[in-house]
Amino acid sequence: MNFQLQHTDPKSKARAGLIITDHGQVETPIFMPVGTAGSVKAVHITELKNDIKAQIILGNTYHLYLRPGLEILRQAGGLHKFTSWDKPILTDSGGFQVFSLAENRKLTEEGALFQSHIDGSRHFFTPENVMDIQRIIGADIIMAFDECTPGTADYTYAKKSLELTERWLDRCITRFRETECPYGYSQTLFPIVQGCVYPDLRRRAAENVAAKEAEGNAIGGLAVGEPTEKMYEMIELVNEILPKDKPRYLMGVGTPANILEAIERGVDMFDCIIPTHNGRNGQIFTKNGIMNMRNERWKNDFSPLDENGTSFVDSLYSKAYLRHLFNTKEILGLQIASVHNLAFYLQLMREAREHIIAGDFSRWKNDTIENVMRRL
Amino acid sequence: MNFQLQHTDPKSKARAGLIITDHGQVETPIFMPVGTAGSVKAVHITELKNDIKAQIILGNTYHLYLRPGLEILRQAGGLHKFTSWDKPILTDSGGFQVFSLAENRKLTEEGALFQSHIDGSRHFFTPENVMDIQRIIGADIIMAFDECTPGTADYTYAKKSLELTERWLDRCITRFRETECPYGYSQTLFPIVQGCVYPDLRRRAAENVAAKEAEGNAIGGLAVGEPTEKMYEMIELVNEILPKDKPRYLMGVGTPANILEAIERGVDMFDCIIPTHNGRNGQIFTKNGIMNMRNERWKNDFSPLDENGTSFVDSLYSKAYLRHLFNTKEILGLQIASVHNLAFYLQLMREAREHIIAGDFSRWKNDTIENVMRRL
Repeated sequence: MNFQLQHTDPKSKARAGLIITDHGQVETPIFMPVGTAGSVKAVHITELKNDIKAQIILGNTYHLYLRPGLEILRQAGGLHKFTSWDKPILTDSGGFQVFSLAENRKLTEEGALFQSHIDGSRHFFTPENVMDIQRIIGADIIMAFDECTPGTADYTYAKKSLELTERWLDRCITRFRETECPYGYSQTLFPIVQGCVYPDLRRRAAENVAAKEAEGNAIGGLAVGEPTEKMYEMIELVNEILPKDKPRYLMGVGTPANILEAIERGVDMFDCIIPTHNGRNGQIFTKNGIMNMRNERWKNDFSPLDENGTSFVDSLYSKAYLRHLFNTKEILGLQIASVHNLAFYLQLMREAREHIIAGDFSRWKNDTIENVMRRL
Repeated sequence: MNFQLQHTDPKSKARAGLIITDHGQVETPIFMPVGTAGSVKAVHITELKNDIKAQIILGNTYHLYLRPGLEILRQAGGLHKFTSWDKPILTDSGGFQVFSLAENRKLTEEGALFQSHIDGSRHFFTPENVMDIQRIIGADIIMAFDECTPGTADYTYAKKSLELTERWLDRCITRFRETECPYGYSQTLFPIVQGCVYPDLRRRAAENVAAKEAEGNAIGGLAVGEPTEKMYEMIELVNEILPKDKPRYLMGVGTPANILEAIERGVDMFDCIIPTHNGRNGQIFTKNGIMNMRNERWKNDFSPLDENGTSFVDSLYSKAYLRHLFNTKEILGLQIASVHNLAFYLQLMREAREHIIAGDFSRWKNDTIENVMRRL
């Protein structure tokens, strides 16, 4: 993987760049649709490419490891071939999902013992086997196995947790270097900065991660229960330390406002279930604000779903029709909302990039957040 | 509406024709995807047009009357505008759905009192108001309000039921003639032949329907519990009587085998939930037979979903991937199966038409049924 930093906004830390992988290029800042178990829910691969214009998607190691499982993925020749998505893929390390299992997992120095949410079967993730698993899944960018510290952790827990994450990172790097992609193309490993909301822990974590000289770096453990202002503060602090010539990925974030604020603070890559998950619950993001399609208000609004929208669903279908589809629990409603919201997020990223290059990012960002986050 | 009978197979009753409506032409024999409540489940309008190549779709009066309801449909300018489907539409009369409600409906000479399956609210369908409702929905072809006699009815019940259907038909025709399409284009009313499995009742029903000189005629009350051979027998008998220069629509049928057998017996139009409903349960129709995608057998079959398929899903996705999507209950699995099965049904209709025109329909039909209906 290669990263070209193309432009930095003169009035903020916002950056425009280009990630080059063996499966193609990614213009940053970028949003990565979440393809949990090998499918971006309710969205065809063709729609991802042609309508949403996704450049890279995310897969979840935890889910893919359980189903379809490594044997199928290996036989398929990796996740790209299995899903027919031939552009870049990033996989998380399973850390977040495993730690979300709460009562059904046990953490040791060696790794994490957990029970499958599907059948209760017992599995053990270690830094080493998570590298091996991600080699078999075959994503272009793979993530270090870490403990995702809850946003509400006390200092003692957060420090102990960070220390474990740092030891695990070294084990990940060692294993990653000892192995190679079974499919012949290049994979790269991103380390993750943890440290909860404690400035000194975040600083130490960022310095440790920076010292690894990876091709890209991630910020984890944010948007996990801490106040939003704390999140922005941590991003600022960490990005002061992470190398400027490498892409920075803020994991699991967020709303359009969160993303634009993080771009302003120097983040390049994002993933989040909000556009698809909230979309399936009837929430539609537009430049004029957020619509709840379950609301009676739209029942006879026959205007196009989004007159500023870039995907075919925006002009083809009306607000009233989408409201009817949600009201009658039609699958097509989930499809339309998912395509629309993802296309909106990707369009927002393209516009952010244009404004970074034009040099007026911050003013545009302030106006955009005000309009986009309004409830209609 | 206009119908041109273009070709009749010299060795069978199979026909190729052209239906001309104000929303475009339909080549027969044709299969109509079922768009119950204004959506062909899990399928975009664009996919219906470009990938499935549907020429006409069906809407259910019962469902559309309940949701979105007549006020919304009227304000939208009819179902075409509401859904963005600008090609021909046919609506059933609600008779089948109302009579399926069993305990929740009461039949009188005047009409059918029923309770909504959604909220238990009480409604009354009469031949007159069902014409009015279908005027507002605005389908190109609308159906008479009838009693759909169960396939297991005894002679006395079937005769009484047919007599009611015939009185209701006269009331439908009267009301239809007194009214017009509120949106300025032309609508046409198809009467329905009932009579259960009793030859003399079917004969009488067909003669009564034929005498109305409608622009097209339907055969109802089949595939509702009677033996398949009885169904074919009734179709043959009825089609001897129904006018040859008008399209014949066999309601709610069926499997690929049922449809091809009925085409051979002179039927031109079909609708059925099998391709979408069974598709959502993992059943995939191909020229080589029927696949159950929930089966372990496909878990590492990475060949294309259907090498003979005509839609993008057939070459883009593998059998193993679709099996994985069903295994993980991903919405995309429902989407792929629905697009595939509908495209398969429409392709089957195009091939049937070609073989009718080529004059070798029956031989092709026998081979095709043997291959298509095999379990893989």
